[in-house]
Amino acid sequence: MATKSLATWALALQFSNLTASVIEIAVNSVSNWAGCAIAGYEQPASVHAMDAMLPFVVPQGNSTILGTDLSVDAQTAAFINGIASHADDYDDTHRDNPIHPSGPVMSALLAVAEWKGSVNGEEFLAAFVAGVEAECKIGVAVFPEHYNVGWHSLLTFSLDITSTVGTVGAAVAVGKILGLDVAQLQQAISIASAQVIGMHESFGTETKPFHVGRAAQAGLMSAVLAKAGLTGSLEGLEAERGWSHVVSTRENLTAEIDTLGSVWEISLNTFKPFPCDRIMHAAIDGWIQIHDQAVQKQLDVTKITNVTARCHPRVLFLTDDPEPTTGLAGKFSVYHAAAVSLLFGQATPTQFTDEAVQNSTVVALREKVKVTSDDAVEEHESFVAVEFEDGTKLEVHVEHALGSYENPLTTEQLKEKFLDQVGRVIGEDRATKSYQSFSNIVNYTDVADLVKEYKD
Amino acid sequence: MATKSLATWALALQFSNLTASVIEIAVNSVSNWAGCAIAGYEQPASVHAMDAMLPFVVPQGNSTILGTDLSVDAQTAAFINGIASHADDYDDTHRDNPIHPSGPVMSALLAVAEWKGSVNGEEFLAAFVAGVEAECKIGVAVFPEHYNVGWHSLLTFSLDITSTVGTVGAAVAVGKILGLDVAQLQQAISIASAQVIGMHESFGTETKPFHVGRAAQAGLMSAVLAKAGLTGSLEGLEAERGWSHVVSTRENLTAEIDTLGSVWEISLNTFKPFPCDRIMHAAIDGWIQIHDQAVQKQLDVTKITNVTARCHPRVLFLTDDPEPTTGLAGKFSVYHAAAVSLLFGQATPTQFTDEAVQNSTVVALREKVKVTSDDAVEEHESFVAVEFEDGTKLEVHVEHALGSYENPLTTEQLKEKFLDQVGRVIGEDRATKSYQSFSNIVNYTDVADLVKEYKD
Repeated sequence: MATKSLATWALALQFSNLTASVIEIAVNSVSNWAGCAIAGYEQPASVHAMDAMLPFVVPQGNSTILGTDLSVDAQTAAFINGIASHADDYDDTHRDNPIHPSGPVMSALLAVAEWKGSVNGEEFLAAFVAGVEAECKIGVAVFPEHYNVGWHSLLTFSLDITSTVGTVGAAVAVGKILGLDVAQLQQAISIASAQVIGMHESFGTETKPFHVGRAAQAGLMSAVLAKAGLTGSLEGLEAERGWSHVVSTRENLTAEIDTLGSVWEISLNTFKPFPCDRIMHAAIDGWIQIHDQAVQKQLDVTKITNVTARCHPRVLFLTDDPEPTTGLAGKFSVYHAAAVSLLFGQATPTQFTDEAVQNSTVVALREKVKVTSDDAVEEHESFVAVEFEDGTKLEVHVEHALGSYENPLTTEQLKEKFLDQVGRVIGEDRATKSYQSFSNIVNYTDVADLVKEYKD
Repeated sequence: MATKSLATWALALQFSNLTASVIEIAVNSVSNWAGCAIAGYEQPASVHAMDAMLPFVVPQGNSTILGTDLSVDAQTAAFINGIASHADDYDDTHRDNPIHPSGPVMSALLAVAEWKGSVNGEEFLAAFVAGVEAECKIGVAVFPEHYNVGWHSLLTFSLDITSTVGTVGAAVAVGKILGLDVAQLQQAISIASAQVIGMHESFGTETKPFHVGRAAQAGLMSAVLAKAGLTGSLEGLEAERGWSHVVSTRENLTAEIDTLGSVWEISLNTFKPFPCDRIMHAAIDGWIQIHDQAVQKQLDVTKITNVTARCHPRVLFLTDDPEPTTGLAGKFSVYHAAAVSLLFGQATPTQFTDEAVQNSTVVALREKVKVTSDDAVEEHESFVAVEFEDGTKLEVHVEHALGSYENPLTTEQLKEKFLDQVGRVIGEDRATKSYQSFSNIVNYTDVADLVKEYKD
């Protein structure tokens, strides 16, 4: 019944069912996604994908490739915007699960809202929240809280859960906007769930953001196909030979689906302060604090002789790359993150370019970094320390990293992040205008106007 | 090294490396695929998918939707032709593995050959064989020869292997035609392998042929993306967190890849004589023989009181549907297959329509069918028997079903199948013309002309 229950709940959800705090975090999620997608178009993955798509693009479409003046068909826009929104590794993350919730859902939904027209802000947000709840509920249902040995943990580590659940999230959001009935949405969910997109092996390559774009497009097309009459299973999620049994041994789909509308997964969404793998954020937070202390104490950060961090084991599992050579690889290197945080006191897109990764001072410092794993340290926690040539030692214990659920970015900080990120790419004025548009989404009578406005 | 070895071998393969028997079965595979794709356009799955795609289609493309006069962009043509080629469950099957090899590869390759132009028949066949070898080698490497209990067999039963390996096959064939270098093709393979498309739960719905279309399109796009510069892993198949470890515990990729060019997987391709799940073919073969005996003995087949079959356990695993209500479901019902084979002495597309499945005589007879599983019976073997009202008993032991590797359809029988299947849809004259074109593919200087010819 999980697929049917999910479809029924999603179609019944109204804007009036959303609490004030759900609306607030939904709007923050929308604008954080938009900042990533607009700025992300400049990333190589987005440019390469757009080049690849040109022969297949309907030129008279009305869905926007954010960050450009191009309008194309909705499936292409969903694909490219999805890639762009994740290309900088700067988006959002569910508290309990490495899902980046907005990417697949927003990329599909905005493209469809522009294509269909006449979708108002309240309808849009209700569909967005439905999609996020769908993907996160099924994600939480299959993702282990603890990483056991054996094939189960191998599987969950091997699949890129953002996109494996994101296809379903996108299908639910788009299906709701397109007016599918319950049985059609059940089938859309099943068609989407039959496409398991995203492997861990792609991390550190442009295929990682490709996963998100492909999930957005696959979910969108699943809804469109179901609406056109393509039949699918009515029980794709829970059936014995369906999704949950392929991606996990855990069987608590029903329990998670039962909490729809009472536990809001979107309330557990968090936003990245640094454009790199979230698992390193606690250590980065600590190293930036050390940088600031060093400045205050007039210590020369180029005179650091050794750097340590004691972290959750997933830090080394995911980011143990001592010699990255590209900005993209730097996003998955805890050694690079240490060096830039200590040297520059910040970790913005500027610190994750090819140039930054190849900078000789950065290279020299990253070679002095030692990271150890400790099961007793939480994911959002770190113990970092440095020693200077003169023997001075500085150390910081970060209990809850900046950007974590317990220490979240404020709406004001999210606005600053947006303006910095987007301003670099399309200029300050248009960045301000686009922030105003996206953060005001709830008041639009036609969401399609929103994108037009900031393009003008 | 598996990904690199595969890419290196595939790019080096020349038409002159193919043996005469490989060329013969490759050409038979091409024309059998074409018959399925041309006739398959009339199937509901293809029509629904085409309706869904209309808003996303480049109208001035030059890749043909077979069975129609429509030409669209290559990714849409690959998608729709892929669906059509599998919609009738009448295509081909690898001897050792339930892979239907031609669907994903041909659907992608023909669309690209029409798009790019100037691909001659020899180049085309070399690329086709490279794609089939790629998908079948990796399929054989992960698919168990024996169906063990536990998660391993659950996984391999749960995924639709035709499309999970077909994305890679399509990427290899298209990558070869597009002139990728080895590193680009390694990345195309990895991008393709990060998209695991196809779940068993979709069987009996239109999502099953959708898997093949989506695999063709995904593989095609993976090659196009890699050529455009989208980076991916160089080791997507064998990496610890890559494809083979997600879909299986078996680790003999290297051993299988090592046999490329010495053991030709395409030589193990077989062609379906009946448009339904292959696992029932041995029983159908036997029941048709019983029908023919009954006719000869002037026994009335509507007076049959019970029907039995002793079969390989996968027959009931896959086709234990006693009450199908649609032609599509009938393709996965051993009871329906028994009734039509006994009543009409044949199992052609006519016997798998909604009308045939709902026919009251058919319904009455299928209720008399008992099927038992026997581990000692091979997949291509069956023991079938019937009893008439007057007590007469007829029984048949089929050792090697018609269409199996040991009892294959001849080229002449394949031609008859093509003309029957395609003639029903586009008329006898055009069917004859299209058979001549596809079966003569090796002699074309531009494969794009081939499709044009039969359309004229």
